[in-house]
Amino acid sequence: MPRLPIIHKTQLVASSRLFQVEEVHLEFSNGEQRIFERLVSRGYGAVLIVPMLDNETVLLIREYSAGTERYELGLPKGKVEPGEDLFEAANREIMEEVGHGAHHIQLLKRVSLAPGYMGHHTNLLLARDLYPATQPGDEPEPLEVVPWKLNRLDELIAGNECTEGRSLLALYMVRDLFMRLNR
Amino acid sequence: MPRLPIIHKTQLVASSRLFQVEEVHLEFSNGEQRIFERLVSRGYGAVLIVPMLDNETVLLIREYSAGTERYELGLPKGKVEPGEDLFEAANREIMEEVGHGAHHIQLLKRVSLAPGYMGHHTNLLLARDLYPATQPGDEPEPLEVVPWKLNRLDELIAGNECTEGRSLLALYMVRDLFMRLNR
Repeated sequence: MPRLPIIHKTQLVASSRLFQVEEVHLEFSNGEQRIFERLVSRGYGAVLIVPMLDNETVLLIREYSAGTERYELGLPKGKVEPGEDLFEAANREIMEEVGHGAHHIQLLKRVSLAPGYMGHHTNLLLARDLYPATQPGDEPEPLEVVPWKLNRLDELIAGNECTEGRSLLALYMVRDLFMRLNR
Repeated sequence: MPRLPIIHKTQLVASSRLFQVEEVHLEFSNGEQRIFERLVSRGYGAVLIVPMLDNETVLLIREYSAGTERYELGLPKGKVEPGEDLFEAANREIMEEVGHGAHHIQLLKRVSLAPGYMGHHTNLLLARDLYPATQPGDEPEPLEVVPWKLNRLDELIAGNECTEGRSLLALYMVRDLFMRLNR
């Protein structure tokens, strides 16, 4: 692996309420220089949760997505709030979005979205031993909760209701985990 | 599923060489109003390719990622250029990045990155029947090509060299596909 490039300068070039874009002035170990743009990641990170109602059934949600202008089927997710750890954030999000808390939550993997131009990471978590519990969220309308059997993951992949890469990856990981547990 | 929200207005609020941020003024079917920010997706989309050297071995690349400021192990990827279809773009990218073309390329799935606030989609493709072929890319330094056995996907998940959700999802999909083919 080459030595890491030297970052000579970073410079804010655009900014809005939610997003910050900066230029990164890089010099690679072979002397090549490049100026790349990237989205700066602020805040405390994000969580995306696989809430398992039982050993076979995951609770998906159907939610309007402003980026793609359509209702997307996917997993509950949200930002980590100040003072929360990942597990507290995950538990709050599933209470807000699927009406359950969880006695057991474990980290599956911390994934990047588009590491070439985004600093963002999402923590994928598995939530088990659910119990009914709600917390008010900030959603503009009630979310539809859609129970889905993990052995129907192929249908989710083949269809076009669920397109989010992070959600699909987390479902593959949990399906593998439960296949090993049930063996 | 509720009726789609009405988009009353979209407005550009920040802009750089690569990124555009716009505000979306939404009215949900229950009357609730929200103003969300989103990244606009320009261009012709992106491809991410799983180049299979044989029925067991995928060619990964190690590349510097400016967003996360580290070398990431992942799949070859890039933007679709004007005039290209997805398959031409995929074939060009693997020639540039892993030194092979492919006789067979198929679309696995079109995935979104973060549909809540990004319009971006990535087309995941499987490339088979590889042949040696190169094309000059625009990389600042040569990429390291790393052959990886699909039956070692668990190690990739457990380690921290490969964090990109899209790459990991594509590898799960191809592992499933080859498991069915080899059965």
